[in-house]
Amino acid sequence: MIPVSIAFLLFPNVTQLDLTGPAQVLSRLGNAKIDLVWKTLDPVMTDAGFAIMPTATFGDVAQADILCVPGGLGVIGVINDNVAMDWVRKMGASAEWVTSVCTGSLILGAAGLLKGYKATTHWASHNQLALFGAEPVKARTVFDRNRVTGGGVTAGIDFALALTAAIRGEEHARMVQLSLEYDPAPPFDSGSPEKAGGAAVADYMRRIAKLAPNREAEMQEAAVRLGFS
Amino acid sequence: MIPVSIAFLLFPNVTQLDLTGPAQVLSRLGNAKIDLVWKTLDPVMTDAGFAIMPTATFGDVAQADILCVPGGLGVIGVINDNVAMDWVRKMGASAEWVTSVCTGSLILGAAGLLKGYKATTHWASHNQLALFGAEPVKARTVFDRNRVTGGGVTAGIDFALALTAAIRGEEHARMVQLSLEYDPAPPFDSGSPEKAGGAAVADYMRRIAKLAPNREAEMQEAAVRLGFS
Repeated sequence: MIPVSIAFLLFPNVTQLDLTGPAQVLSRLGNAKIDLVWKTLDPVMTDAGFAIMPTATFGDVAQADILCVPGGLGVIGVINDNVAMDWVRKMGASAEWVTSVCTGSLILGAAGLLKGYKATTHWASHNQLALFGAEPVKARTVFDRNRVTGGGVTAGIDFALALTAAIRGEEHARMVQLSLEYDPAPPFDSGSPEKAGGAAVADYMRRIAKLAPNREAEMQEAAVRLGFS
Repeated sequence: MIPVSIAFLLFPNVTQLDLTGPAQVLSRLGNAKIDLVWKTLDPVMTDAGFAIMPTATFGDVAQADILCVPGGLGVIGVINDNVAMDWVRKMGASAEWVTSVCTGSLILGAAGLLKGYKATTHWASHNQLALFGAEPVKARTVFDRNRVTGGGVTAGIDFALALTAAIRGEEHARMVQLSLEYDPAPPFDSGSPEKAGGAAVADYMRRIAKLAPNREAEMQEAAVRLGFS
């Protein structure tokens, strides 16, 4: 099998499953090397209260076959960080696949990598994606040329299986799905705003507003500062 | 909300999504404290080529409301490690919920915590679960009294949503599912041996036999040594 290198951006307050879901799937590509990349090799705290170790720094990784950017409440910190954004831009310019999960697509967008591309993100952030010149699409995984974007959090598993099939073929992807026993059976049917209903959506929005009260304004400011509007 | 403490066992060569999937879900229980527990606070290498930081050592955590044990090829190393097993036994004796994902149930079983309980594990390990006096059940999540076991890898997400509902009620679990956009849409239908078919199963078994050629014999030896047969 042809070797495949994958570089995930790891950053403080990442939604860790955005990264760890696809990392699990892609670690089974065969002949794959995964790097988690940040400024230093110090542990990076995630949203779930534990830390993940970077495997490399921005200076160590100048190119990868797959760039994958996860999301989370730390996204705005990355977008406002010139060093991190320079690395994303550089990696995005040369990667064979430029990808994201959840609100990681806002980072790709802010780096100018989604202008004129169809893309997706967490259901609650579709309007923010448009700030950066992307065309938001409601879908679990969106392929547009070499941009591949996944929806919110758990969509990263579906996204990574689709990418596995694109790279190694459907037969290999099916074997990986079997190895992960990915035969989902959620106890409830509440995974989208339409299915969950208005009360659950309102409850979620209240919680997010508490955790990140200025999220939309900060993203709009970033879009202006970066010349998108 | 009543505080809930959750202790995950973290160990070398854990299948990281076995832990990170349910950790993501349970981090949204509200008023929850998650610990990842191992012998030292040094980074612990996972099966996916990156390391996760423990938050506490065995000496730090003597009790938790939920004990959760993930699986992976490192399971046999834990079962053969008296210090780790003593901690699992002690925690299991006092936890309100004694739980596992994937082959983590073999650790619970080897600790004597599943004798006479219905339980599940990764589809390829059901016969091994019986070695420890458990009654293997093919299901995504199995509740038997306060033992809650999930199937292979990705089943940890379904498991954790079911546990969330048991602890915080269905309405809260539905909000968590929505927040994680858990509306799964795998690109293929290949997540169980029955659905994947014989060729995919044989391919998977070949790969596992290469990675861990003595797995079954080692587990049988452990069961004998621990007095199960």
